[in-house]
Amino acid sequence: MYGMIGKITATPGQRDALARLLLSGSADMPGCLSYVVSEDLKDPDALWVAEAWDSKDSHAASLKLPAVRDAIAKARPLIAGFDAAAELKPIGGIGLGGK
Amino acid sequence: MYGMIGKITATPGQRDALARLLLSGSADMPGCLSYVVSEDLKDPDALWVAEAWDSKDSHAASLKLPAVRDAIAKARPLIAGFDAAAELKPIGGIGLGGK
Repeated sequence: MYGMIGKITATPGQRDALARLLLSGSADMPGCLSYVVSEDLKDPDALWVAEAWDSKDSHAASLKLPAVRDAIAKARPLIAGFDAAAELKPIGGIGLGGK
Repeated sequence: MYGMIGKITATPGQRDALARLLLSGSADMPGCLSYVVSEDLKDPDALWVAEAWDSKDSHAASLKLPAVRDAIAKARPLIAGFDAAAELKPIGGIGLGGK
């Protein structure tokens, strides 16, 4: 498995709009086991995305999906910063069923 | 929903043992929607845990479960550091089904 955890800082006041875009683009991504978008409780502009994929290739392929490309293009102007916290190898747990 | 993302640094050579403890203790936790344990691909001693719960209360209650308390007690000597990256409010995505 392959995974990522990243913190995305929205431009002021745009966190909700950015979250909607991230969620809309991620509805149907082959090989995606987990994709959770969360609000940072302390930073009003920050979102965290924790992802798990069956392989790094599936993740790379997802970036070519029309819905994902479209969401990224629309999201870009709403992003003030992106901190890739970590590149990961998920090894187990709850919620890796891809639903 | 309530969530957390944390980076746990194991004592040298103990990452696998620590991961097994985290996973064994987390098998049956009421209200847990997602609990993913991952290896950091760049730091050989680091694990990341991304959690999502139906409520903060469910998370707090989990810390009183015998299996969780037992895992934490066994894990403590294997932990060199704990960086609570963020306290979160999950808002959606894939893999929040609790299975």
